Amino acid sequence: MAATGLSRSTMATRLEALGEAGYLEVSGAADSTGGRPAGSFRLRRDAGVLLLADIGGSHVHTALADMGCDVLVSHRRDLSVAEGPDVVLGQVAADFRRLLKDAGEPADRVRGIGIGVPGPVEAGTGRVVSPPIMTGWDGYTVPDFFRGGYDCPVLADKDTNLMALGEHRVNWPDRRHLLFVKAGTGIGSGLVLGGALHHGSQGAAGDIGHIPAPGLDETSPDAPVCRCGNSGCLEALAGGWALVRDLTAAGHDVATTDDVVALVRSGNGDAVRLLRQAGRLLGQGVADAVSLLNPSILVVGGGLAHAQEHLIAGIREVTYRRSLPLATRDLRVVLSPLGTRAGVTGAAHMVADALFDPATVDARLR
Amino acid sequence: MAATGLSRSTMATRLEALGEAGYLEVSGAADSTGGRPAGSFRLRRDAGVLLLADIGGSHVHTALADMGCDVLVSHRRDLSVAEGPDVVLGQVAADFRRLLKDAGEPADRVRGIGIGVPGPVEAGTGRVVSPPIMTGWDGYTVPDFFRGGYDCPVLADKDTNLMALGEHRVNWPDRRHLLFVKAGTGIGSGLVLGGALHHGSQGAAGDIGHIPAPGLDETSPDAPVCRCGNSGCLEALAGGWALVRDLTAAGHDVATTDDVVALVRSGNGDAVRLLRQAGRLLGQGVADAVSLLNPSILVVGGGLAHAQEHLIAGIREVTYRRSLPLATRDLRVVLSPLGTRAGVTGAAHMVADALFDPATVDARLR
Repeated sequence: MAATGLSRSTMATRLEALGEAGYLEVSGAADSTGGRPAGSFRLRRDAGVLLLADIGGSHVHTALADMGCDVLVSHRRDLSVAEGPDVVLGQVAADFRRLLKDAGEPADRVRGIGIGVPGPVEAGTGRVVSPPIMTGWDGYTVPDFFRGGYDCPVLADKDTNLMALGEHRVNWPDRRHLLFVKAGTGIGSGLVLGGALHHGSQGAAGDIGHIPAPGLDETSPDAPVCRCGNSGCLEALAGGWALVRDLTAAGHDVATTDDVVALVRSGNGDAVRLLRQAGRLLGQGVADAVSLLNPSILVVGGGLAHAQEHLIAGIREVTYRRSLPLATRDLRVVLSPLGTRAGVTGAAHMVADALFDPATVDARLR
Repeated sequence: MAATGLSRSTMATRLEALGEAGYLEVSGAADSTGGRPAGSFRLRRDAGVLLLADIGGSHVHTALADMGCDVLVSHRRDLSVAEGPDVVLGQVAADFRRLLKDAGEPADRVRGIGIGVPGPVEAGTGRVVSPPIMTGWDGYTVPDFFRGGYDCPVLADKDTNLMALGEHRVNWPDRRHLLFVKAGTGIGSGLVLGGALHHGSQGAAGDIGHIPAPGLDETSPDAPVCRCGNSGCLEALAGGWALVRDLTAAGHDVATTDDVVALVRSGNGDAVRLLRQAGRLLGQGVADAVSLLNPSILVVGGGLAHAQEHLIAGIREVTYRRSLPLATRDLRVVLSPLGTRAGVTGAAHMVADALFDPATVDARLR
């Protein structure tokens, strides 16, 4: 109750309602400070299913999870977010139908939908706001697309926020401050501070991809132009699309971040050298974030991170060299254990949280 | 009660105890969700006094405040923190006695003591941990020095955290995310995120003074050595002591940050040029912090900020140019309205918070 801010009687009423609706099960007795017996509740794993999508810059990952946030079936396809909301969300909806069919679940068992997108999202509404790379999405309210099709809450957040949330809930629930850095086609981060996602005033928090690359004069004509319209951004030097550009210029046949990863895995010297350099550049931005936030865990994910150890090695090297000793004394720097599932897993937790949220519960069970 | 996480009955018991001890007054009826009449409580302004100290790199600011956190009398003296805890805290204790005498208050009316120091402090204990510039303080538990002298809670925190807290509580209590940047002899920051101070895992959060200056190769032999032992830190180029170094090299007779400020105010060309450059450099670090945290208000304080508009002009220029449009759309960049009183005001609020804290209340009123 301390965590919810609700009085005992209000909470009991809500739990009763959730229980009657078949959402809850008791997970064991916990100690009580008031002398009355108390229990720990969780959503019943089989009380329904969640539909989840992680929309990246160049791919869409969809999944169906149980109410315990475990992914049961998932699907991944290449698709550019620049196709716009109608095409991309239309494809997500089609993939959702296929996942339901594969899992043998009817649509009326869907209890919640969670969507991650590669840009800032207004907290509360799920409206995309001034995204640097999501052509055609500015001002689009993502949940509206699904409202007619399913009778359940629909929530949206920035992809990196969901990845941070997923890793925090699954792997480090007891750490108060976690920084998740995504190095894929684009570069971004998600911040769990004090155990909760930090969105910032406009939902723009975590934007480390478009800070100017350290050691570079971003007003110089030599600074590479970024997808966001500025020049010399970290992403314009160390993002997957920047590596595609540089490897293409060096005569290699690459078109996507996956191609870059394949080239690195084949041991190509140019690709390995560029990825290592990207790791050091990214490490400089990450080190500054570590100095500012003093997290206890730094999780690195995204396609480039999982290519090989080169990227995270560069990040570790620079972070430990550049941040204050105190800030790195107990800092762990790890590869994202959830990998490509971090986004959809975080989306599941976002939705499960909402199902426990008083406002949602009131609306659903009234 | 939502804000405290306490049940209604527990809170009522605690309020009753505080009321019986004469700490509380009712500040007006508020609406109640439970149908019972409810009131807003605040600490009685005349229920006692608070003793506060803001220990900077080269000065000590002490103050006596009422229980409403308004400073009644204060005193400022030059003193280097590198004199060590015995000398500096001994002087603080002497200044406290003088403030009590000036205000005509006996020592047994002191309800709480709050101390700010220019380095990281472990949350909960008030122990100084690995401070870059506080020679002789590492591992020192600040509150212990005062425990014998006064029968009240003693709390300590990093000076920039208290400045951020003070500005937030007094001037922007409704803003959720506030970034306070101090540009004095040293450079640092304090973060109010989600309405509360963010300390980080080791109390090291907010360290923007020792991130490498943007656009500089900190491994180059030309990078200036910093007080923290590294090279090329932002503070080593834009801090007050760095300006003293550069102005001295240019033939000017300056020894302290106050001297630099005086030279700027006299219109000296070298001093103005260096301060403007410092503002732009600092602006680069600040812009990156704005991109990462997306605060809605950026408060700039410290001696250099108040010299003239040059510093904040440079910060504004670079922040609005370098941060994402979304992150700066509603961002206000302002000079610290509390000025030199920001630290002691924040210290007063830290102590007043503790007097309402269940753990403190339980210990004091049992």
